[in-house]
Amino acid sequence: MALIVQKYGGTSVGNPERITAVAEKVAKFREDGHDVVVVVSAMSGETNRLTGLAQQINERPEARELDVLLSTGEQVTIALLSMAMHRLGLDAKSYTGGQVRILTDSVHCKARIVSIADQKIRDDLKAGRVVVVAGFQGVDENGSITTLGRGGSDTTAVALAAALKADECQIYTDVDGVYTTDPRVVSDARKIDVITYEEMLEMASLGAKVLQIRSVEFASKYNVPLRVLSSFEDGEGTLITSEEECMEQALISGIAFNRDEAKLTVAGVPDQPGVAHRILGPVSKANIEVDMIIQNVGDDNATDFTFTVHRNDYNIAKDILENVAKELGAKEVTGDVKIVKLSLVGVGMRSHAGIASKMFETLAQEGINIRMISTSEIKVSVVIDEKYLELGVRSLHTAFNLEQKGTP
Amino acid sequence: MALIVQKYGGTSVGNPERITAVAEKVAKFREDGHDVVVVVSAMSGETNRLTGLAQQINERPEARELDVLLSTGEQVTIALLSMAMHRLGLDAKSYTGGQVRILTDSVHCKARIVSIADQKIRDDLKAGRVVVVAGFQGVDENGSITTLGRGGSDTTAVALAAALKADECQIYTDVDGVYTTDPRVVSDARKIDVITYEEMLEMASLGAKVLQIRSVEFASKYNVPLRVLSSFEDGEGTLITSEEECMEQALISGIAFNRDEAKLTVAGVPDQPGVAHRILGPVSKANIEVDMIIQNVGDDNATDFTFTVHRNDYNIAKDILENVAKELGAKEVTGDVKIVKLSLVGVGMRSHAGIASKMFETLAQEGINIRMISTSEIKVSVVIDEKYLELGVRSLHTAFNLEQKGTP
Repeated sequence: MALIVQKYGGTSVGNPERITAVAEKVAKFREDGHDVVVVVSAMSGETNRLTGLAQQINERPEARELDVLLSTGEQVTIALLSMAMHRLGLDAKSYTGGQVRILTDSVHCKARIVSIADQKIRDDLKAGRVVVVAGFQGVDENGSITTLGRGGSDTTAVALAAALKADECQIYTDVDGVYTTDPRVVSDARKIDVITYEEMLEMASLGAKVLQIRSVEFASKYNVPLRVLSSFEDGEGTLITSEEECMEQALISGIAFNRDEAKLTVAGVPDQPGVAHRILGPVSKANIEVDMIIQNVGDDNATDFTFTVHRNDYNIAKDILENVAKELGAKEVTGDVKIVKLSLVGVGMRSHAGIASKMFETLAQEGINIRMISTSEIKVSVVIDEKYLELGVRSLHTAFNLEQKGTP
Repeated sequence: MALIVQKYGGTSVGNPERITAVAEKVAKFREDGHDVVVVVSAMSGETNRLTGLAQQINERPEARELDVLLSTGEQVTIALLSMAMHRLGLDAKSYTGGQVRILTDSVHCKARIVSIADQKIRDDLKAGRVVVVAGFQGVDENGSITTLGRGGSDTTAVALAAALKADECQIYTDVDGVYTTDPRVVSDARKIDVITYEEMLEMASLGAKVLQIRSVEFASKYNVPLRVLSSFEDGEGTLITSEEECMEQALISGIAFNRDEAKLTVAGVPDQPGVAHRILGPVSKANIEVDMIIQNVGDDNATDFTFTVHRNDYNIAKDILENVAKELGAKEVTGDVKIVKLSLVGVGMRSHAGIASKMFETLAQEGINIRMISTSEIKVSVVIDEKYLELGVRSLHTAFNLEQKGTP
């Protein structure tokens, strides 16, 4: 008998039939003797419908009122899901974020959770009820409705699991788990059974968009075991947990990649202190996020400074750099949008220096030129030409035996 | 400079354009220096959409969850209307029923208001804000969302006006006021400028369905001046107020009528004590509402007992009476569904005994036979054959000069 927090996204509750299916799924957990708290998103399409109404009235709606508007989406779902449970004979009770009292700060549309009052939920569970909570929303000290921003329902679920000290937080979605890489690129990509929070963060931020980064950070901070699984198929999904809990940890967990990158180089920059700041300062001032950064000393006390940005930001960043290059007396600004980033991720690589060299060797054997390299404790990233993406991912997937369990 | 509570119904806020039009209307009141609290219903069609979703999931949804679901309708409107006001440069703030703290009892779907916390609203008004409140909803002592049932937004508006001691409560609707009778029957029916609460209650219950009875009762109890006016046209509408405020009160304010009545007679009932109860007891036990009741002593110590019911209840009521008649040894049960009720309403008639006789004379001149008569302090009702409805209303409208102001 465990206490489980389950989260169902918009697709999983997208119409009355699916809402009934979720109720049936929860009923099975109740039959097995588990206590269940369910967190739900707005029915798919509803948030867009509401945003569309707002746009027709005011192109720049005030954030406080946008929260009042959008929070109705989950409120509709909690009521309908509770009704579906009642029809199955389950005792269920719905709560908006404000009714639970999920207290947040007052930053409307991207509020952060401050505290959760869990007594009412505990009482309901004790009384044998399923508790249905609206995700994505809370209330600030003034009683104003707030929303947590994109992916906020995942965060609500993890925060509730942390507050209730739940045994597991299950995130139901339209994929059946986290894979060693994108199955559309590598057909024998394998579903990962267990992965650490750190690895998941690297995988998520690099493109395996199953879970919101913030909810993984939250789960890691409060050590909440997180499980990603499918709403529509049975299966164990992928468990995301702390390193201690990952008993048989592989060296490499997966290969993430990112097609959205672009590379910029300021060549022939006089090598003086403060150059990096003078180059990146104006870029970050323009709210452009910089990912990988590399600086090498070249000939004649000049240096080449290279970094990557999101492909959408490439043109603006290049314009900024042209100006900076003039001021610095740099030689030229070059760039490339036809590049991709490819990363090996695994906590096991901490103790194995050989991983990086094996990676470079594999790519070299395929004739793939490496443009940039960047490493962290648990990942090695390379930038390569876009056209080599599939070849690179597949050859690494094979070289590290990722299609097999517990390797290499 | 006055404090005005305005209520806009579902048709008045039925789409983004109309919501913007409401915001513009409110802006004019602000320009004139008035403080405004706006109460809104769900956008027309929204409640049906939500009810439809619930029906697909559970044909008998639990009332608590139905309230959670339906209350989102007004919540959407308050957010959108506030956004529309911001766009016009008005400072506006929205409140759900729970946020105001409109405290109700816990009878979901037809809750009654217990108290209203008005401090936040007063503070907002003082700060120059328009306050936008979700009608139809409140919150009970446990923090559960409640709804006030049909017409509840009118009640919210009147209750807020009472709590805030507002100078006027304006109910915006799709008609431009209360008329002396239905303009579809009498083309020169006149819009009434001022009418008393009592008269309005008689008019409303008799078929002039402009305002919910409950909100008129509420306004009368707390002496809130109530004004019915059009969302779509300019005009003063109709003011509903206490008798003391109606300076030039006409003898007759209007003619109401009701097409939904049916008449039942138990003839030849032995005239004994308790007969009325033995006849009406079983009828009211079947939840059938009885309107007019007449009993006359006839020959041979036997009596005829006649009353009217809603036409939908006629068949059930007749079956019940057949049984009762046998038990009582009554002669027979007869009935008529082709009848209508027609009522003259006016506080002025209290002091003028001649009103009733003038009414009967007028109908007689037209050859209209009166089947039943019933009188109260401020109305005279007659039951006549259905086919004479239009003729009866028109001839009375002319006889009492209702097309002219301040008569007879």
